[in-house]
Amino acid sequence: MEDIDRQEILDDIAFLIEARDEPKLRAIALGSQPADLADVLMHFDRDHRHFLFNLLDTETAAGVILELDEATRHDLVERLEERRITELVGEMESDDAADFVGELPDEVANEVLQKIEPEESAEVQSLMKHEEDTAGGIMALELIAVAGNQTVDQAIQEIRKKAKEVTEVYDVYVVDRSGKLIGTLALQKLILAGPLMRVSEIMERDFISVEVGTDQEVVANLVRKYDLVAMPVVDKEGRLAGRITIDDVVDVMQEEAVEDISHMAGISSETSVHEQSVLRISRVRLPWLIIGLFGGIVAALLLSFFENALKSEILVLLFFVPVVMAMGGNAGIQSSTIIVRGLATGDIDLSDTWRRLLREVRVAILNGVLCAIAICLIIMVAWKDPQMGILVGASLLCVMFVASIVGASVPLILKRFDVDPAIATGPFITISNDILGLFIYMGIASMYFRYLQ
Amino acid sequence: MEDIDRQEILDDIAFLIEARDEPKLRAIALGSQPADLADVLMHFDRDHRHFLFNLLDTETAAGVILELDEATRHDLVERLEERRITELVGEMESDDAADFVGELPDEVANEVLQKIEPEESAEVQSLMKHEEDTAGGIMALELIAVAGNQTVDQAIQEIRKKAKEVTEVYDVYVVDRSGKLIGTLALQKLILAGPLMRVSEIMERDFISVEVGTDQEVVANLVRKYDLVAMPVVDKEGRLAGRITIDDVVDVMQEEAVEDISHMAGISSETSVHEQSVLRISRVRLPWLIIGLFGGIVAALLLSFFENALKSEILVLLFFVPVVMAMGGNAGIQSSTIIVRGLATGDIDLSDTWRRLLREVRVAILNGVLCAIAICLIIMVAWKDPQMGILVGASLLCVMFVASIVGASVPLILKRFDVDPAIATGPFITISNDILGLFIYMGIASMYFRYLQ
Repeated sequence: MEDIDRQEILDDIAFLIEARDEPKLRAIALGSQPADLADVLMHFDRDHRHFLFNLLDTETAAGVILELDEATRHDLVERLEERRITELVGEMESDDAADFVGELPDEVANEVLQKIEPEESAEVQSLMKHEEDTAGGIMALELIAVAGNQTVDQAIQEIRKKAKEVTEVYDVYVVDRSGKLIGTLALQKLILAGPLMRVSEIMERDFISVEVGTDQEVVANLVRKYDLVAMPVVDKEGRLAGRITIDDVVDVMQEEAVEDISHMAGISSETSVHEQSVLRISRVRLPWLIIGLFGGIVAALLLSFFENALKSEILVLLFFVPVVMAMGGNAGIQSSTIIVRGLATGDIDLSDTWRRLLREVRVAILNGVLCAIAICLIIMVAWKDPQMGILVGASLLCVMFVASIVGASVPLILKRFDVDPAIATGPFITISNDILGLFIYMGIASMYFRYLQ
Repeated sequence: MEDIDRQEILDDIAFLIEARDEPKLRAIALGSQPADLADVLMHFDRDHRHFLFNLLDTETAAGVILELDEATRHDLVERLEERRITELVGEMESDDAADFVGELPDEVANEVLQKIEPEESAEVQSLMKHEEDTAGGIMALELIAVAGNQTVDQAIQEIRKKAKEVTEVYDVYVVDRSGKLIGTLALQKLILAGPLMRVSEIMERDFISVEVGTDQEVVANLVRKYDLVAMPVVDKEGRLAGRITIDDVVDVMQEEAVEDISHMAGISSETSVHEQSVLRISRVRLPWLIIGLFGGIVAALLLSFFENALKSEILVLLFFVPVVMAMGGNAGIQSSTIIVRGLATGDIDLSDTWRRLLREVRVAILNGVLCAIAICLIIMVAWKDPQMGILVGASLLCVMFVASIVGASVPLILKRFDVDPAIATGPFITISNDILGLFIYMGIASMYFRYLQ
């Protein structure tokens, strides 16, 4: 139902655009949320999109452009005049403005930074200095800060003064003379306190803050763990530098989850689901396909290496190459996924390493034994070849055991060397386990045929 | 550094527990966040955990027990007296209480529901009626609701009256006489308005709400899309039924991401990373391993079916079975992951179906052709067998093409029939593409040897 409604709305708006019915389109835009308008724009072609966007007032347009995916935004901005871009930046909050200007081509960015108000320009440039995926890279400068000796009434005056700039207050931050953060005060507590009380009497002294250099994933985990709606960011000296609000944290969580799941599927970097260019989609997927291809070639070379052992009588041996490889891949992915997710959400830390590995080893042995018995029995019944059954079963157990250990230990090792463990899920583990699995299987088989027959 | 610190803290606390130093332990607990205490408890064995938990005052204990993972909580609750459980439930917010009581064994749950205050018991029971993964299942009843004709000052009085019960207000909800939600009012706006203004004059009439039956994933997507911190929940008649706060939405997002990534890795349901029981971990991983095993057996049967075509001269054909199967699996997973994630976040809807499929087909052809050329050249050079190169290359192209279409269309079809598309990532796609890929490869090969040689 919902999807049909959306299609109808899109058709109606397209009709109005073709009829150049500007008053009706403006009225629709006025009654819509920026995120919904962005949704509509992303479903239109360039001309329709451009026409509709140009009808929006500056404030709405600034909200809408931030909600577009990067590809669509890029496409739209290319056709905008510099004056319009400057106006849009002027309407944005500091963190959004920094991200937006950071995406512009260098020349345009410099022009824009010169034309916006000097104070805002300085703010945006200071934010652009931080690494994109750190607390500094996602924080905004809009916040309410007061001194500890100010009264509740004075704090409320400060909120009133900044009402246009800081649209979501959540917490008031209390700083000392040097700008050091010494406490936080929830808006609700401020309302309920007497107007003449000192802020320092009612503020929370046990607060959670992060430094500008803290990784954004760590920030997200802290916000989730302590149920926060805003996180103050301080510099190395503990001075209040900015704050991160929950809406940006939610975006970070989404981004990190999509990144992990993309890595797992062998997609090297995230592209928007609205990405139109087949070439661009192909480019992010091709690297792992190529690496997979070479993994497969190595597998084929390995098999030719064992060609002497592969007389046509034991052709049946080759029939089970796929299952042994696939099962090793499955067991490895299961182990590595659990470890990678746990490390990402902070539920696993390195002090647990040995306990984790031991647990994975025990699970691998249990599941390996069960699968080995199953395949052994099936081969005995279906192929009437007990020797082959035992051979394949034993190989399967070894391969699943090794694959689990590789799957669990590689992310832990990567984490220890400060490399993103997420690259250890997906194709990397699959391919290395394919080759390792094949080697173990063919090794056991050729030893068996050489020494036991 | 952080991990070493944590280990030291754990060791210190363990030492204090062994020394039965209750005053010091109480002091540590008093200065700690519930989430941190829960962290400590999850790292201890049963006896240490129980001893430490018993030292906590009821309010802290209630906070801590909600932060534990399910396995640890279950273990701890088993050893608690009913009186203590009842006290803990009395301290919880309605949504947490409903979840917690829902986890208890039926007998204990009934006892507890009889012993807590009748009003609270009725609230908890009304919440327990909703499906777990709907808006009703995650909403809380603690909220501030006022009538439109009340003044700002009266609204603030209402907040003051409920200050102990509603610790995070965010928004005040405005209802008419029948309890229908007619507007929302941000706390900040309330502070800045004159005390005698009517709530209806300053409230937001364009607000976003969900019905009790709305899926929690949809709620999370709406909160993310519109940057909300609290979402009002209404019944079918539009009457205010409860509200969902951002901290619960963040947990839902986390849960859904872990669920998707677990499905992808072939882990049938999520177990906590702190799960200790090897048997329980094995059980959630075994189903896909068994299905993978049977997929592999089918592959082996397929290969025996083609045995006549596999004379020992063309043994080399078998060497490339692994690479063809693996590449089909990779291409299929890439396509399906993009579609599954897009459907989960609401970025893709069914009205896009044909456009999506067309795009995946074009990407598959492009990447398939590139990989086919690569493997063809490699086989020509390394095995000096141009015929085999063309054969394997052509098969690879067909397999990648089919696998991509299967990978992209299965989640869309599942979604259309209202089945969770996430089951289409991971092992399901891999196994079906393995078998399909093998069939295509061997089919092309046997036709080639029959008709062209």
